[in-house]
Amino acid sequence: MKLSEEVEKMVAEIGDDLVSGAAELALRAVNVFRASLVECLSDSSVGEAKERLTETARAIVKAHPAMAPMYNLGSAVLNAADASSTVAEVETKCSQAITDFESKLCQSASAIADLVFGLIPAGENVFAYSFSSTVVSSFLAARARKKFFRAICTEARPSNEGRRLATMLSSGGLEVAHSFDLALGLILPTCRAAFMGVDCVGRPGLVNKVGSWMLALACRELKIPLYALAGTEKFVPDDVFFAFEDHVRPGAECWTNAPQGVKVLNHQYEMVPFNWITGLVTDEGILREAQIEEYVNRVHVHPRLEELAIASF
Amino acid sequence: MKLSEEVEKMVAEIGDDLVSGAAELALRAVNVFRASLVECLSDSSVGEAKERLTETARAIVKAHPAMAPMYNLGSAVLNAADASSTVAEVETKCSQAITDFESKLCQSASAIADLVFGLIPAGENVFAYSFSSTVVSSFLAARARKKFFRAICTEARPSNEGRRLATMLSSGGLEVAHSFDLALGLILPTCRAAFMGVDCVGRPGLVNKVGSWMLALACRELKIPLYALAGTEKFVPDDVFFAFEDHVRPGAECWTNAPQGVKVLNHQYEMVPFNWITGLVTDEGILREAQIEEYVNRVHVHPRLEELAIASF
Repeated sequence: MKLSEEVEKMVAEIGDDLVSGAAELALRAVNVFRASLVECLSDSSVGEAKERLTETARAIVKAHPAMAPMYNLGSAVLNAADASSTVAEVETKCSQAITDFESKLCQSASAIADLVFGLIPAGENVFAYSFSSTVVSSFLAARARKKFFRAICTEARPSNEGRRLATMLSSGGLEVAHSFDLALGLILPTCRAAFMGVDCVGRPGLVNKVGSWMLALACRELKIPLYALAGTEKFVPDDVFFAFEDHVRPGAECWTNAPQGVKVLNHQYEMVPFNWITGLVTDEGILREAQIEEYVNRVHVHPRLEELAIASF
Repeated sequence: MKLSEEVEKMVAEIGDDLVSGAAELALRAVNVFRASLVECLSDSSVGEAKERLTETARAIVKAHPAMAPMYNLGSAVLNAADASSTVAEVETKCSQAITDFESKLCQSASAIADLVFGLIPAGENVFAYSFSSTVVSSFLAARARKKFFRAICTEARPSNEGRRLATMLSSGGLEVAHSFDLALGLILPTCRAAFMGVDCVGRPGLVNKVGSWMLALACRELKIPLYALAGTEKFVPDDVFFAFEDHVRPGAECWTNAPQGVKVLNHQYEMVPFNWITGLVTDEGILREAQIEEYVNRVHVHPRLEELAIASF
């Protein structure tokens, strides 16, 4: 089944967005499902409606295969559809699943912000890497609760979403300093804590924007606590964990008009081992590595989405 | 004494050049002294000629206070001038000093290239950071001697001189791959050796473009040998070593039109400790940390240049 032009356009816009974090894009994916559900009401059979939702879910996962919430939102919708026997039931049950997921995302952000408040050292420089709506909401909430600190961030080449982070934090009233990415060696020694968002959490480790490994290495060397912020909707089972490795962007996004003889590499995600992170801050508390397995075991990706990750090997 | 417009323009161009390495800019500084010496011939007294050369040397050091060859070239010229008692003698002795320094720079590059040939693992990926004419000449000489390898480099933000490195190596017939700076965590594990130029060598360590510290940290973690290439004209005594810390560039070079509330930091140099480097490859062999002191003790910066570094504290 071919998706409607409107839905395809919404999905393409999400796929082309390289500066927003996973939680933020998942909220936009929620709107894609809502649009798709409206179209289901005109479908002639329940089978057709289920097929439409499956294709929507697969398109969303393909847009950002490293972002865990895309699998988990899609699985929630497809499980609700599986349990429905009429088009009307599909609409009711899937709407509820979408709304539940949306609430969960917002509750996660809020629960994480409460924990982060206690982790930000007052009056100090605090580092934040790349762009994460969870980091933004946590920092701004801390500032609103009268904790004074300075956020320091870097460009996050090649998409420069670190500038978006700097801009949003500054607009929100935080004092912000900014530099280029490899200035980490000069900047981090002035910081007392570092924070990053996460695209995906699995048994092997955390997946986030390329550069997170170097950040974690430098934090370990300099003994600066590094916290990764991730709602439990970011957890994925082993089957889809390594999908991030296929997410390679065009070299021209890193260097337009590079000389012909130069091959430009532009990977987007990399893994950071758990034991390099001081704490994984989730809506269910600050988790230790030993607890991850329990949470991963709770997550089940719908078979029609799981096969996307397997096919990519 | 005010320098001529021509000489001032030449110095300003060297100061504005953020993509060339120290050895390359020192060769251009040689031409500035040659132009200044021609002007000395019209000076009315030997004192005036010496004053002209002193001001030229000071202007060159101020253009790039972290680049050791600027101090050493200037000191060679001023020592030759000190030993002269007529304008004609100034011209002869200083010309000789300049020519000797120029020959030394070229001999250093050639001696280093011979050593680097033995350090490049055949058939492997080899990393190079920032821009260094010594790295370029060493790599191209190795390729000309039929050693096949692939060079990998990164942008070296904010001036992107890593792109210049990629372009020159590729034009010279090397296979080249390129990525953004924090992709080091993905790129380095594919490399069997890493190389970088150096702006300055002193007792406390090496000074090079910001990012070198992170590169050295990652190489140490991944057990990849990291070689720093520096002719002995890059050695400086303690008095001027820390001048690099004052070399801060305008934030707008890192982020044009940053929001008003965001302070943009743009430092240019940082120090890497010796024990993080596998070898310091010089024209007098591959030196160990214990040998550095002996070489540093041989170097004496002329007092009129030394006071520039002291004044900056």
